[in-house]
Amino acid sequence: EYLGVTEYSKERYQGNEFAGVVTGLAWTAVGGEILFVETSLSKGKGTLTLTGNLGDVMKESAMLAHEYLKSHAEDLGLNPEIFSNWNVHVHVPEGAIPKDGPSAGVTMVTSLASAFTQQKVKKNLAMTGEITLRGKVLPVGGIKEKILAAKRAGITEIILSEENKKNLEEIKDEYLKGLNFHFVKTIMDVLDFALLKTKVNRPVKL
Amino acid sequence: EYLGVTEYSKERYQGNEFAGVVTGLAWTAVGGEILFVETSLSKGKGTLTLTGNLGDVMKESAMLAHEYLKSHAEDLGLNPEIFSNWNVHVHVPEGAIPKDGPSAGVTMVTSLASAFTQQKVKKNLAMTGEITLRGKVLPVGGIKEKILAAKRAGITEIILSEENKKNLEEIKDEYLKGLNFHFVKTIMDVLDFALLKTKVNRPVKL
Amino acid sequence: EYLGVTEYSKERYQGNEFAGVVTGLAWTAVGGEILFVETSLSKGKGTLTLTGNLGDVMKESAMLAHEYLKSHAEDLGLNPEIFSNWNVHVHVPEGAIPKDGPSAGVTMVTSLASAFTQQKVKKNLAMTGEITLRGKVLPVGGIKEKILAAKRAGITEIILSEENKKNLEEIKDEYLKGLNFHFVKTIMDVLDFALLKTKVNRPVKL
Amino acid sequence: EYLGVTEYSKERYQGNEFAGVVTGLAWTAVGGEILFVETSLSKGKGTLTLTGNLGDVMKESAMLAHEYLKSHAEDLGLNPEIFSNWNVHVHVPEGAIPKDGPSAGVTMVTSLASAFTQQKVKKNLAMTGEITLRGKVLPVGGIKEKILAAKRAGITEIILSEENKKNLEEIKDEYLKGLNFHFVKTIMDVLDFALLKTKVNRPVKL
Amino acid sequence: EYLGVTEYSKERYQGNEFAGVVTGLAWTAVGGEILFVETSLSKGKGTLTLTGNLGDVMKESAMLAHEYLKSHAEDLGLNPEIFSNWNVHVHVPEGAIPKDGPSAGVTMVTSLASAFTQQKVKKNLAMTGEITLRGKVLPVGGIKEKILAAKRAGITEIILSEENKKNLEEIKDEYLKGLNFHFVKTIMDVLDFALLKTKVNRPVKL
Amino acid sequence: EYLGVTEYSKERYQGNEFAGVVTGLAWTAVGGEILFVETSLSKGKGTLTLTGNLGDVMKESAMLAHEYLKSHAEDLGLNPEIFSNWNVHVHVPEGAIPKDGPSAGVTMVTSLASAFTQQKVKKNLAMTGEITLRGKVLPVGGIKEKILAAKRAGITEIILSEENKKNLEEIKDEYLKGLNFHFVKTIMDVLDFALLKTKVNRPVKL
Ligand SMILES: [Ca+2]
Ligand SMILES: [Ca+2]
Ligand SMILES: [Ca+2]
Ligand SMILES: [Ca+2]
Ligand SMILES: [Ca+2]
Ligand SMILES: [Ca+2]
Ligand SMILES: [Ca+2]
Ligand SMILES: [Ca+2]
Ligand SMILES: [Ca+2]
Ligand SMILES: [Ca+2]
Ligand SMILES: [Ca+2]
Ligand SMILES: [Ca+2]
Repeated sequence: EYLGVTEYSKERYQGNEFAGVVTGLAWTAVGGEILFVETSLSKGKGTLTLTGNLGDVMKESAMLAHEYLKSHAEDLGLNPEIFSNWNVHVHVPEGAIPKDGPSAGVTMVTSLASAFTQQKVKKNLAMTGEITLRGKVLPVGGIKEKILAAKRAGITEIILSEENKKNLEEIKDEYLKGLNFHFVKTIMDVLDFALLKTKVNRPVKL
Repeated sequence: EYLGVTEYSKERYQGNEFAGVVTGLAWTAVGGEILFVETSLSKGKGTLTLTGNLGDVMKESAMLAHEYLKSHAEDLGLNPEIFSNWNVHVHVPEGAIPKDGPSAGVTMVTSLASAFTQQKVKKNLAMTGEITLRGKVLPVGGIKEKILAAKRAGITEIILSEENKKNLEEIKDEYLKGLNFHFVKTIMDVLDFALLKTKVNRPVKL
Repeated sequence: EYLGVTEYSKERYQGNEFAGVVTGLAWTAVGGEILFVETSLSKGKGTLTLTGNLGDVMKESAMLAHEYLKSHAEDLGLNPEIFSNWNVHVHVPEGAIPKDGPSAGVTMVTSLASAFTQQKVKKNLAMTGEITLRGKVLPVGGIKEKILAAKRAGITEIILSEENKKNLEEIKDEYLKGLNFHFVKTIMDVLDFALLKTKVNRPVKL
Repeated sequence: EYLGVTEYSKERYQGNEFAGVVTGLAWTAVGGEILFVETSLSKGKGTLTLTGNLGDVMKESAMLAHEYLKSHAEDLGLNPEIFSNWNVHVHVPEGAIPKDGPSAGVTMVTSLASAFTQQKVKKNLAMTGEITLRGKVLPVGGIKEKILAAKRAGITEIILSEENKKNLEEIKDEYLKGLNFHFVKTIMDVLDFALLKTKVNRPVKL
Repeated sequence: EYLGVTEYSKERYQGNEFAGVVTGLAWTAVGGEILFVETSLSKGKGTLTLTGNLGDVMKESAMLAHEYLKSHAEDLGLNPEIFSNWNVHVHVPEGAIPKDGPSAGVTMVTSLASAFTQQKVKKNLAMTGEITLRGKVLPVGGIKEKILAAKRAGITEIILSEENKKNLEEIKDEYLKGLNFHFVKTIMDVLDFALLKTKVNRPVKL
Repeated sequence: EYLGVTEYSKERYQGNEFAGVVTGLAWTAVGGEILFVETSLSKGKGTLTLTGNLGDVMKESAMLAHEYLKSHAEDLGLNPEIFSNWNVHVHVPEGAIPKDGPSAGVTMVTSLASAFTQQKVKKNLAMTGEITLRGKVLPVGGIKEKILAAKRAGITEIILSEENKKNLEEIKDEYLKGLNFHFVKTIMDVLDFALLKTKVNRPVKL
């Protein structure tokens, strides 16, 4: 067999240059980690393609994100027709690592929203939280490990579900220094905070 | 692997603000629980998408609910064409928890009916019961645990199959205090009771 | 996991009010049982949807029933175009119980024929038998248990394959009292006996 | 679970009244058996549906038969357009018994040819043999058991691959008495012998 | 279960009468064997159907062969539109025997080319070799066993990858007597040698 | 079973004559190896076909490469319509060997870019690296073994992710002699270096 040897390395924050690239926080058996959700659009009939060795639950998060934006297009100032005229591809590097769970929901919906609006994502921001179809943001586990990973990666702004606020109490203050937390109840709260008004360089015309 | 850590927490009733969001009652290995069925519509060709880590039997409940409404559109005052012009997405949070069984049938059909009519669902209401294609509501198990969970969650109105009436006898009166039970034979009984005449705020134009 | 607790209960005959609802006889590890096959039609392109936790062989029975009616439309006085203008959904409650085997064939084809003609099914009737594509009715097993279950459920008329006639000899007369048996060779024999000339109340216009 | 009890019974030959019904010879762990291949046509786009609890190899036999007839339509005096205007459903009773292997190939192709021509099949005929896409008939196993089963079932004419001629030598003459063997090299040899010039009663207009 | 008994028999070369029938060489656990690849065309939209109990790698060989011919239509003097107007069915008898591996690639591409051109294949020819999408012919294993099988079957001309030339050295001269070897680098080398200029009798009009 | 015997042989570099053929570096349990990615185009609706016994992660690499080129068509001077008018087939010989992992990403995207532009690939070049949807090139493992394999195969130019630069330090200078390394951050860096301005002989008109 021809197989790649996986090189594990701790990622660092990589800027907000690209539309559709958003930083998430993940929990792994060996501690927290940041991950990137990348969304790309191409002309088509509105299909959703998912890559990055994703499990079924994580794929459902992307389906929820896509559907939420479709049914709230007007609230976001989007022409509803773009959803049937553009195919969406969502990728989560790195391909050798299986990924699953619902906690990338907020990262997925922000990634898709940035791709469809071509607006920049707030700088030095990472996030974690499950989303629901009506737009709630649910709490997730592994908060301590995720925060340590965020800090190590150069993150300064973190979005969490309001229901995860209680999880910060169990973390030493020195670990929280230099981090700003933004607690949210809804997807709209996330997008209000995470999406900047300015467009990326050379935005795609949708 | 990147996996979410599941945080188990007992849910509370969350209001009736949204069209398509209905509270169900579930039985789990560690007791009863309430769950939410969320339905969202988007323009399309009438497909049905199901998320929330659902097993095959629970998916069939959603198919039955969709089909029942299609073939009884007129009884509900619905234009039959909406079923071929709107895609339906049904989601049951929380994604990390596998769910199965037929007992969410009544919750599914009420969720879809609320989404298609944009009518509010009665306040403080939860329900459990299997549905059949001809519109019967069949009894389900775990009634005692489900009722305890409903009370804890702030529910005051409960819909059950008439064939589950007998199950209340084995429950102490103090547990039933403050709860109103509505026993039903058919899906139409459920919708007559559960769907209010008033529309939600900012209803979707169908 | 959220799972329903299955409540086993012996069913009773439920009348002939609905088009497309037909009573069958099933064999289970704990004895005979009656079951209901429900068929619902909705405008579409002629697809066949099957629910009720059905195994592959039982699904094939529904495909055979659908195909038989298609290719014998004229014999039944049906406009052949209804098969390409109406989707068919066949459901067998109860969803928590896996079901398989070919013996529901006669029940399936009667259910579909009643749905497509909107004619009533004969009262207090139950049936069991495998069907073939050319229209034969083959014998099935478990006759004794099925007959006991039919009697207990309030059935008075039973359709069996002529090749199952011999199975009655091994059953005590007292168990057969009050039951009328109708032995058939073909699907047409079944429909001639089971489908009444009168339409159901508020028939669907096909 | 609701399951049928399988009733094993030795079949008898059933006449040649129906277009598309052909008698084959099968080998089972408990001896030879006859089986029936049934083909039904309905208006459509030319799909091929297969039922009867068939394994992949047996399904491939039906695909080969369908394709062979398509590409030799003219040789059979068939209008090539019927293959894109009529759906084909092939069924092999009995649904409770899994079936596999390539030996029903000649039976399948004769069944489809009879359905497409609406010509009768020769009386008291059974057959066994694998087919290939170019139209060869290959030898199959279990000849002795199959011949005994044919005789018991009332068959008098048997089609075998010429390469199975040698297998008759090992069978006692008394078992062969009353049987006429027709050894074939090609599918055309089979159809020349098996398909009568007369049409069935009330033929379908294709 | 109804299953065929597999009759193993050593095949003999069968002539070049048919378009689309080409002789390959296979390696099995009990020695070499010849096999036949059969291709049939029927009017359609260009689909590729594969039968004969083929494994995934062998199916990929057929896909490669089909694609290679599509993208080199002009080099073969073929109208590119035939690939979207004709369905291709490739079969490898015998259905009871599972087959896999890439070594039938040259046989597949010659079979398809003969079917699309309706040109005869060179007489007494067999071949083995893997193909790639750019048109290379790669060496394969089991050369010694394959050559013995070819000789026994009446083959006199053999096509091998040039990279398999070295494998002949280990075979005794007496086994090679009467065999002509043609070493190839590319699919075009194969087709130049294997396809005759003359058409088959009664060619299909494409 | 008919199976090919796999002949393991070390490959050599094979020139840059063909559009769409690019040399990659793979890691296997028995050391490094070079492999070839071949892309072929044929008129169609833009489907992507993948062959060569590829695992899911390697298939995702091809999907990423295809999507990246679609959404960056203008940057590459490509008419965006070619992606909906041409089907893409990507093959990795040799079919008998299962292949997986993300490290062929850069090879895939170069192969597709060469096919769509019909431009030659730089001579004596091999490469390894994972790609992401936004166009990053990630480091991969097995660098030492891959470099040895490249040298043995006649490669002189090697593209690696900049993040793999550190891996060269652990390799003896004598092994690196005669090799030129090109460290890249992005897919555009890869294509700038790997794709020559000159077209291949007899380019396909797109
Ligand atoms: Ca990493
Ligand atoms: Ca996350
Ligand atoms: Ca919970
Ligand atoms: Ca429920
Ligand atoms: Ca019951
Ligand atoms: Ca039954
Ligand atoms: Ca039998
Ligand atoms: Ca047979
Ligand atoms: Ca053989
Ligand atoms: Ca071969
Ligand atoms: Ca090799
Ligand atoms: Ca590589």
